[in-house]
Amino acid sequence: MNSSLINIGDELLIGQVVNTNAAKMSQMLGAAGIEVAQVITIGDDAEAIRTALTDALRTSEIVLITGGLGPTKDDITKKVLCDFFHSELYEDAEALENVKRRMAAHGRELTDINRQQAWVPRCCTVLNNPLGTAPGMWFDTQDGNGRRQVVVSLPGVPFEMVGLMENEVVPRLREAFHTGHILHRTLITQGIGESFLSDLIEPWELALPRNIRLAYLPQPGLTRLRLTARGDDPAVLQQQVETAVQGLMQIAGQYILCDGFDTLPEFIAHTMVTAGLTLATAESCTGGAVASQLTALPGASEYYVGGVVSYSNDVKESVLQVSHDTLVTHGAVSEETVIQMAEGVRRQLHADFGIATTGIAGPGGGTPEKPVGTVWIAVASEHGTITRKLSIPRQRAQVIEGTWQQLLGLLGKCLKERT
Amino acid sequence: MNSSLINIGDELLIGQVVNTNAAKMSQMLGAAGIEVAQVITIGDDAEAIRTALTDALRTSEIVLITGGLGPTKDDITKKVLCDFFHSELYEDAEALENVKRRMAAHGRELTDINRQQAWVPRCCTVLNNPLGTAPGMWFDTQDGNGRRQVVVSLPGVPFEMVGLMENEVVPRLREAFHTGHILHRTLITQGIGESFLSDLIEPWELALPRNIRLAYLPQPGLTRLRLTARGDDPAVLQQQVETAVQGLMQIAGQYILCDGFDTLPEFIAHTMVTAGLTLATAESCTGGAVASQLTALPGASEYYVGGVVSYSNDVKESVLQVSHDTLVTHGAVSEETVIQMAEGVRRQLHADFGIATTGIAGPGGGTPEKPVGTVWIAVASEHGTITRKLSIPRQRAQVIEGTWQQLLGLLGKCLKERT
Repeated sequence: MNSSLINIGDELLIGQVVNTNAAKMSQMLGAAGIEVAQVITIGDDAEAIRTALTDALRTSEIVLITGGLGPTKDDITKKVLCDFFHSELYEDAEALENVKRRMAAHGRELTDINRQQAWVPRCCTVLNNPLGTAPGMWFDTQDGNGRRQVVVSLPGVPFEMVGLMENEVVPRLREAFHTGHILHRTLITQGIGESFLSDLIEPWELALPRNIRLAYLPQPGLTRLRLTARGDDPAVLQQQVETAVQGLMQIAGQYILCDGFDTLPEFIAHTMVTAGLTLATAESCTGGAVASQLTALPGASEYYVGGVVSYSNDVKESVLQVSHDTLVTHGAVSEETVIQMAEGVRRQLHADFGIATTGIAGPGGGTPEKPVGTVWIAVASEHGTITRKLSIPRQRAQVIEGTWQQLLGLLGKCLKERT
Repeated sequence: MNSSLINIGDELLIGQVVNTNAAKMSQMLGAAGIEVAQVITIGDDAEAIRTALTDALRTSEIVLITGGLGPTKDDITKKVLCDFFHSELYEDAEALENVKRRMAAHGRELTDINRQQAWVPRCCTVLNNPLGTAPGMWFDTQDGNGRRQVVVSLPGVPFEMVGLMENEVVPRLREAFHTGHILHRTLITQGIGESFLSDLIEPWELALPRNIRLAYLPQPGLTRLRLTARGDDPAVLQQQVETAVQGLMQIAGQYILCDGFDTLPEFIAHTMVTAGLTLATAESCTGGAVASQLTALPGASEYYVGGVVSYSNDVKESVLQVSHDTLVTHGAVSEETVIQMAEGVRRQLHADFGIATTGIAGPGGGTPEKPVGTVWIAVASEHGTITRKLSIPRQRAQVIEGTWQQLLGLLGKCLKERT
């Protein structure tokens, strides 16, 4: 039993919007034991929608569709689904109530266009969407062999989709299909390249039970290993994965930064909160990305006190108290400056750890001595300050991402060594 | 003539990684006049790869594949493509040189696994990838009617994919296919809901030339309108779009914040640099997201001096000089506090504009009086300070995104009114 996702929207195909819905829906389905076999992204085009739906129903029992439910001309999904299932549109009283409620809450008049949002195919089950005007639609159908298939249409607005998935779609799918269990476990490795790691752990990997798969997820400065186990009994899966992880620890334990955390920020948050430590950030080239990554997680305020984005030298001097002489003598992108930034923010913001970045994110600003991608990072604590020089001769977004990843990796290493 | 993208990787289907490659590739292809008809995301599975490729070749002349080229067991794309095209693998001398060069540059020994990266199908044209060890592979083929088709396999690592697209794939596709032109133009509207806007501009939309499409891209607090024109003559397209925009200005000009910028940060950067203005940020609930959005664009240092992430009240007091009394009397999430944050950061960092956020991003921290999603934003300048109270009762990521979008919208409005 598996699912296909169909994400509809011209904006996805011209690259103006990144398809984050697919990732979010996959996470939610995976947690419910429903595997996603494919994601199909197409434009607001009737023929493409019909073809994608037909193809998806050939391989999947569950087809979830997002997008194209807005009130405007380019939104045609509802009409296409209505035809596909040989149904007709009618005005659903409950959906209309919801539209009216939302308009009233925003102090707005009900227009004909708003009202059209309450028209749905007669053959579907209407899923109430209290966060928006477009209801979800659940279609029950079956394949050539009479096996049950489900098609669900959801709005493309991310939080509306998430609300409907949580409250309506996932619970109904769990009930409609006998869902097996999927267990994921991620380990983050550091200090060894992907191919060397692969060489090292090959015998262990080959000996894994057939229902456990291994995936390598390389990132700047680290490689994540993800084990995925499938089966009917959660306790058995848990035991199998535990045994596999113990085996891995024996052959590659020295490279394993942490076990059971999907991302570095999660590991850092857990470790700092548990140890009662606080953190402050001083960022130049990353421009707030380090702070933003840390604070994207709930509960960040339990260890993160704040930070300074010291883009100009003035701010480095006035807020972080980097010495003017250092900036003139060594430049803003230097080991001396990054040390003073990390120690400055730690001192000024009264934190246990201060971490800092300074570098040339590009595309401008490079020199022969300090080309684009030259970056210094530092971690300051009561035990002193550790620095690293990075060289990331790439595009701006990669320099920024590589820098925060490596900085959090360095902080993770310091935290691991404390314990 | 159109293209299909196939993005391969189990990590995409379990939602651990968001598929940013699809958006980036679509942008690059669109700029070259090549439309993307569909994006298919599948796992590292031979049967799924074959099916997706067969389906894609049924509808598209160009099929671009990413992922599954790494040196590890779960990477099977190369093998599948080799079989698909009835070819055999050989060790390509130039690709091997590249692998050796990269290993040497990192001071690492050449392992058998590294060396396997240089094995490619005999029938393909090898595309050199100086940024990584996996080369790109270009396959020339044809459909049942003898029309030329091209399949290209690229690594899934984003910056390697981008490098190969820029230097190899797009120039070769332009040469191989007679590519038409596509012209996009985006206008950002503010102060009117999507459906009201749709009502207002319907007559104009219906009168658009058939080769121009309109798309609505709603975001928190604003709606982007994107016109897409297709044709052979760029000058004609330019003229058509210009005429369309002038027509839109006449009926909805009061709602149009800017014309010709894809995003708010681009509009803000352009406007501030042109006017010689500087900006500083003070962030609580957005935790660096405002700074990060602004500094993601090249050249941000021309107007952005820096910012403070004042997550704790201590930092609000010590760095931003928010008064202790205000924090005690009105709380951190209050109009009084956000005003002092915006004015404080403007003063402390010597900027023309200071912008600030404070709120409850959740999921914890809400109270009956100030539930999760209660946010205050402010824009301070020499003309005084403007505030807005937001209510975004949603998930953490949505509260953060909604807040920075609305804050930049408010700043954009202030900047528009100056001119």
